[in-house]
Amino acid sequence: MTNSWLVGADIGGTTIKLAFITLEGEIVTKWEIPTNTEESGILIPNEIAKAIQEKLKKLNETNEKLMAIGVGAPGFIEMDAGFIYESVNIGWKDFALKDQLEKVTGLPVTIDNDANVAALGEMWKGAGDGASDLLCVTLGTGVGGGIISNGQIVHGINGMAGEIGHITAVAENGAPCNCGKTGCIETIASATGIKRIAETGLLYHPESRLQATLIKEGSISSKDVFEAAEAGDEYAQQVVEKVSFHLGLVIANLTSSLNPKKIVIGGGVSKAGETLLLPLKEQFRRFAIGRIATSTEFEVATLGNDAGVIGAAWIAKISAPSNFTQHTV
Amino acid sequence: MTNSWLVGADIGGTTIKLAFITLEGEIVTKWEIPTNTEESGILIPNEIAKAIQEKLKKLNETNEKLMAIGVGAPGFIEMDAGFIYESVNIGWKDFALKDQLEKVTGLPVTIDNDANVAALGEMWKGAGDGASDLLCVTLGTGVGGGIISNGQIVHGINGMAGEIGHITAVAENGAPCNCGKTGCIETIASATGIKRIAETGLLYHPESRLQATLIKEGSISSKDVFEAAEAGDEYAQQVVEKVSFHLGLVIANLTSSLNPKKIVIGGGVSKAGETLLLPLKEQFRRFAIGRIATSTEFEVATLGNDAGVIGAAWIAKISAPSNFTQHTV
Repeated sequence: MTNSWLVGADIGGTTIKLAFITLEGEIVTKWEIPTNTEESGILIPNEIAKAIQEKLKKLNETNEKLMAIGVGAPGFIEMDAGFIYESVNIGWKDFALKDQLEKVTGLPVTIDNDANVAALGEMWKGAGDGASDLLCVTLGTGVGGGIISNGQIVHGINGMAGEIGHITAVAENGAPCNCGKTGCIETIASATGIKRIAETGLLYHPESRLQATLIKEGSISSKDVFEAAEAGDEYAQQVVEKVSFHLGLVIANLTSSLNPKKIVIGGGVSKAGETLLLPLKEQFRRFAIGRIATSTEFEVATLGNDAGVIGAAWIAKISAPSNFTQHTV
Repeated sequence: MTNSWLVGADIGGTTIKLAFITLEGEIVTKWEIPTNTEESGILIPNEIAKAIQEKLKKLNETNEKLMAIGVGAPGFIEMDAGFIYESVNIGWKDFALKDQLEKVTGLPVTIDNDANVAALGEMWKGAGDGASDLLCVTLGTGVGGGIISNGQIVHGINGMAGEIGHITAVAENGAPCNCGKTGCIETIASATGIKRIAETGLLYHPESRLQATLIKEGSISSKDVFEAAEAGDEYAQQVVEKVSFHLGLVIANLTSSLNPKKIVIGGGVSKAGETLLLPLKEQFRRFAIGRIATSTEFEVATLGNDAGVIGAAWIAKISAPSNFTQHTV
């Protein structure tokens, strides 16, 4: 069994990322299929099964080579049963994904939330580097999170744990958030939030080079803000400083309760690298407990789009019967 | 072995609480000995061993009746090794408590932080009622916490997890905290913090009945504040409102990352009961994610001073070799 493969599946609203992955976490092959959201997504299990069979054939392998499937899926999920209460982007509602996928593939299936699975991928083979206490913060269109404690994902009682994007950063008069609340850190530190802050304040900063971007492009992206900040634009630097203040405070407060070994920052915004990390770490240290401020490491996520399939393979591996495999990180 | 006893020990700066406890978590007998802080606390293991022997003799039992010892201790602790880096109140510094106590008692010893152990006690036999995802908040002289996720204490990488008293509630111009930072929730929601807020603002509220208390007693306690609030004193109600706002926000933000089944509020301040819980729950619901706001239960801790010894017995039970016992909550 030692040269068996795991299947990692990372289901998104547009594509499903698939990979065959060794027990050591190395990707043998990876590919994508479009997400078929017709008929509320009920065709997806069949299409995954078909894609797996075609790929096996191409590699001159059979089903025997595969051990288990791990899946990262978006939405509200009952993890143990692999049951999707609701996944808006896919169209699933009360969908027994685990059962369906096991039926058509004949393999054991384990399912978790996509953000959690990406965090596990970083833990196993990425920036987390085997740390069993990890906080992953994804700064993309929204702000997501995955918390690993004692080597396990923190799910909470409804699978809602790790929803760090909806931590309230501005208690009063904060910007409205998609979740219905106001002042969530997602309204500040997501790509959308950074864009909003930069565009709102630009009126009072005619000297900023972002004026030219606004005129040329019709809008400002978070990437524009970081590039201008790096080039010395004072207004852009103020925006980055404001974002870092709020995000640094939120992360420091999370570490007071979780004391992780590492903070892994991922998502599109993390591509800003040191332009974000330097002010962020400064604000973090200001608000974190002394002992934690000095011991916590910051890293930018390293697996990019592969984090999902690798983390999915990890949950397949640790859920498999123990005679299959050793559960070492 | 089914009628064996566990020993629970809760070591504080003034007394050591001890108990013999059944595998089902019932207290057979409990008693206290003074904490001997002479010679930097090195005599404590011997005195615990002696106290156990005397109690066994009194009950006509022998050492055979005892299965294992669990200990809750204050300070910075390496849990696996049972090694105390530092415990200011006791005087220990680099003290191998587990090794010492095993040597003099001949029993396996498991050690954890006192706040964590109290949280486990509430989980097992108290307000937590078996919930495997629990957030315990202790409002006493300081603010402490214990986080249980997947039935396990969240320790973090240095054992600093659960230090929720040092979550920053006021980012700028907050009151100084013992930890060296400013604006920690401990400076607001502890008995000391409530007293400070009430005394500071009283100058501007000559109409408050707390004026009479101040004149009579020379100071105001958090108990005075809650009593005045309950009796309809508007200023005292404003103080409770302010405390509830900050604490409710901190707890709501914790639930966005942890999604616990229950919040258990303990410590002296929790004796205020509904006078605190009602405004606290209102602020919590304002800042919590909708799904979490409706699913999270608030409870006042029910075990009082017994939480420590019961939780200590729990860690002894779950650390014992698996042929001894079943690990059911």
